[in-house]
Amino acid sequence: MPKQDIISISDFSKDELEAILEASFKMEEEVNAKGSLDLLRGKILASLFFEPSTRTRFSFEAAMFKLGGQVVSATGVNFSSMAKGETLEDTIKTIERYADVIVIRHPELGSAKIAAGAAKIPVVNAGDGPGDHPTQAFLDFYTIKKEKKTIEGLKIAMVGDLKYGRTMHSTIQLLSLYNDVKFYLVSPEELKTPSKYLENVADYEETEDLKSVLPEVDVLYMTRIQKERFAEEADYLRLKDSFILNKSLLANAKNDMIIMHPLPRVNEIATDVDEDRRAKYFDQVENGLYVRMALLAFVLGKIDIRKLSLRANGERGNLLNNG
Amino acid sequence: MPKQDIISISDFSKDELEAILEASFKMEEEVNAKGSLDLLRGKILASLFFEPSTRTRFSFEAAMFKLGGQVVSATGVNFSSMAKGETLEDTIKTIERYADVIVIRHPELGSAKIAAGAAKIPVVNAGDGPGDHPTQAFLDFYTIKKEKKTIEGLKIAMVGDLKYGRTMHSTIQLLSLYNDVKFYLVSPEELKTPSKYLENVADYEETEDLKSVLPEVDVLYMTRIQKERFAEEADYLRLKDSFILNKSLLANAKNDMIIMHPLPRVNEIATDVDEDRRAKYFDQVENGLYVRMALLAFVLGKIDIRKLSLRANGERGNLLNNG
Amino acid sequence: MPKQDIISISDFSKDELEAILEASFKMEEEVNAKGSLDLLRGKILASLFFEPSTRTRFSFEAAMFKLGGQVVSATGVNFSSMAKGETLEDTIKTIERYADVIVIRHPELGSAKIAAGAAKIPVVNAGDGPGDHPTQAFLDFYTIKKEKKTIEGLKIAMVGDLKYGRTMHSTIQLLSLYNDVKFYLVSPEELKTPSKYLENVADYEETEDLKSVLPEVDVLYMTRIQKERFAEEADYLRLKDSFILNKSLLANAKNDMIIMHPLPRVNEIATDVDEDRRAKYFDQVENGLYVRMALLAFVLGKIDIRKLSLRANGERGNLLNNG
Repeated sequence: MPKQDIISISDFSKDELEAILEASFKMEEEVNAKGSLDLLRGKILASLFFEPSTRTRFSFEAAMFKLGGQVVSATGVNFSSMAKGETLEDTIKTIERYADVIVIRHPELGSAKIAAGAAKIPVVNAGDGPGDHPTQAFLDFYTIKKEKKTIEGLKIAMVGDLKYGRTMHSTIQLLSLYNDVKFYLVSPEELKTPSKYLENVADYEETEDLKSVLPEVDVLYMTRIQKERFAEEADYLRLKDSFILNKSLLANAKNDMIIMHPLPRVNEIATDVDEDRRAKYFDQVENGLYVRMALLAFVLGKIDIRKLSLRANGERGNLLNNG
Repeated sequence: MPKQDIISISDFSKDELEAILEASFKMEEEVNAKGSLDLLRGKILASLFFEPSTRTRFSFEAAMFKLGGQVVSATGVNFSSMAKGETLEDTIKTIERYADVIVIRHPELGSAKIAAGAAKIPVVNAGDGPGDHPTQAFLDFYTIKKEKKTIEGLKIAMVGDLKYGRTMHSTIQLLSLYNDVKFYLVSPEELKTPSKYLENVADYEETEDLKSVLPEVDVLYMTRIQKERFAEEADYLRLKDSFILNKSLLANAKNDMIIMHPLPRVNEIATDVDEDRRAKYFDQVENGLYVRMALLAFVLGKIDIRKLSLRANGERGNLLNNG
Repeated sequence: MPKQDIISISDFSKDELEAILEASFKMEEEVNAKGSLDLLRGKILASLFFEPSTRTRFSFEAAMFKLGGQVVSATGVNFSSMAKGETLEDTIKTIERYADVIVIRHPELGSAKIAAGAAKIPVVNAGDGPGDHPTQAFLDFYTIKKEKKTIEGLKIAMVGDLKYGRTMHSTIQLLSLYNDVKFYLVSPEELKTPSKYLENVADYEETEDLKSVLPEVDVLYMTRIQKERFAEEADYLRLKDSFILNKSLLANAKNDMIIMHPLPRVNEIATDVDEDRRAKYFDQVENGLYVRMALLAFVLGKIDIRKLSLRANGERGNLLNNG
């Protein structure tokens, strides 16, 4: 059996995505019931963060611990061999001799794929610069499915920087696999979604006006807008309030809408929204743990994808290979 | 039951302090008997050092490992989310989704309390700038109780920088809960104890002359004096020798006196003192491990505080909730 | 029994080296059979890298995890106590209260020995600047013994920077303990082996011409040559091709020759050599894991050196003290 990497969400079929989602729900059940598992006892994760990201690093490392495994960890400043001129491929071919799975965050587009090509062990992409961040897309998917039970028929507003927002692009493409999904793409003109990410999107509407679409929305996905993205400060000042969510704006939203955000936020969601039961952005963080547990167990051969498909189709059974 | 944080020594009653002390002694017994425990198996500590402190970080992380738990760890340079403008509250609300307990060292006064207020999980203060460092005060307390058996009736000299020395202030306040304790506060005029820390201190004497008080002393607590604290170098040169402990000065001290220091030392204790059996400053380091084990177990609900009180009053029983 | 440190390869007799080698082979067997061991359950390694070396740090930390132990870890930037003026001895006397064994990498010659002198617990040298790097020499030794079965009678070419290459010096001395070993020392005139490392070497030949000696060689040990080492760029340009190994040059080598390199490489071995079955440089990395497992278990009293000697002499038995 060829080794399994997690490089891009687009590498997975809808069935596979559903199976991994099912495994993630199973992980949440297991953690709630037992606290931690023994599935990866004796296994070592090499956590390679060529650029720092404390939250993503902690999420993967905690996921590994919850599965009973161990972690060797390095962040940007420590990659002494590469300072001496070593290639990424050689670094990976070295690290894989100490570990069973590699998680890599690297500032360059395509770096995770290069790492996966060099490695005999599974590689998980934790963000390759402007490229993919598949585990974030998985956890968004998980959060929507958990809260709304279904993807089909949803009206989803993506708000903020839709031009540079890596997460948004993956999530839009993933959700477009489902029928009858309507997207409201709410951004300033300067930060519209690049057309290539909309090729397979059946139903969408672009607007600068969050307030008018808000009453229709089932999922409100907010992102950070950076002032530096605007050529003219006047444009920023004109538009920024449309993209700040607060309690009074929320009065017009559905009672069962959910509010998401990839975090960190700066001021695009007022803190008075945090106590609203529709706010799910900190729950997203926790969901990331279950998704990453499922993905680590999956690439290390501890999840039977066929059984998962059965389960995703309603049958129950023991998903985890404890052998 | 509300969650338990460890923010300041002043949050605890004398009974609670005694109970935690008792639990710390129990931890030392258990470590000596078994090497390590399983009390926190499956639990994760998030070790957040916004400013570096290798010794304090290692102490907490080793304590967690000795209890069977795991650790995700970050030091100053890695807090990438906060560089993007995230608040401390949001950082904490994120991290708590990966962990069961947070240990925080942060340069700003009051930061640990802010973190505790934001978190649903227990927060332990590992030093908030000029504020508190309660686990250091606990380990000082533990060391004195272990070596002298009682606090009552002791004559304690605190020597060095009593103006800025955070540890000294907490330790003075803690020991003042006991009857009949006499403090010699030995410091240059420029570095005297601020009066607010002496409000509840019944019996103290301020002096610049260590030599003359030394023969009376049961506990000699030395600290580092930084040259930069003096306006005039002449004052520093005049006084520095009074605050350096060496073998010949020790000749005038009691045989059962103990010598303490929060470490790191620079030159305020000559290395020829290290071999003196009265020197306890490296033992303090080890005592910190037992105290931090007790505190981690306590905030995670693994120590029954009522049973501890019984034990502190002489009854024996199984202190640890293994459930 | 006195504590055991690992400071320099020259501290060990030939019998002891063979015994540790035997223990390392045992570790490889155990890892292949079981994945990981429980030999150091409850033990803590303090991994102190005063200068960064991700690969060496990961190797020791992974070795500790494979033995069931735990790790507290710090790299250069974090040594806050030493920034305050603490001596290395005091740092070590503090750290040892949290840990059972210390691994130290430090830029200064002799620092590991100073650390070992200060510590009551075992200290393992992971490189002390221009001094020793004994675990690298052990893994080179292991790799040759594993691949060639014997050291006696081998023809070994050491290629590259033989003047500054710390690893080379230790490895030459170690292999010189065996009879009938012939060394080809292949380097530019500017980078010849210092004579003091050749005092006990019975049979060697110095040359600048790799191509002509290659057909004789059983072990080809390549190292990196730094352009900066040459006074004249013309010399570098004249010589550099002699020290680059590629597929066409390899055509003249023995079929059962092995190719080694301490890594990282820059361009002294072309990547088309990686797929050649004689290339063993990434296997060396993995061998380092087994050797470091054996050394950690050895210094912590979990390997019975007398039984190892028996085994090295052909007898079989249970090497590991599981008690």
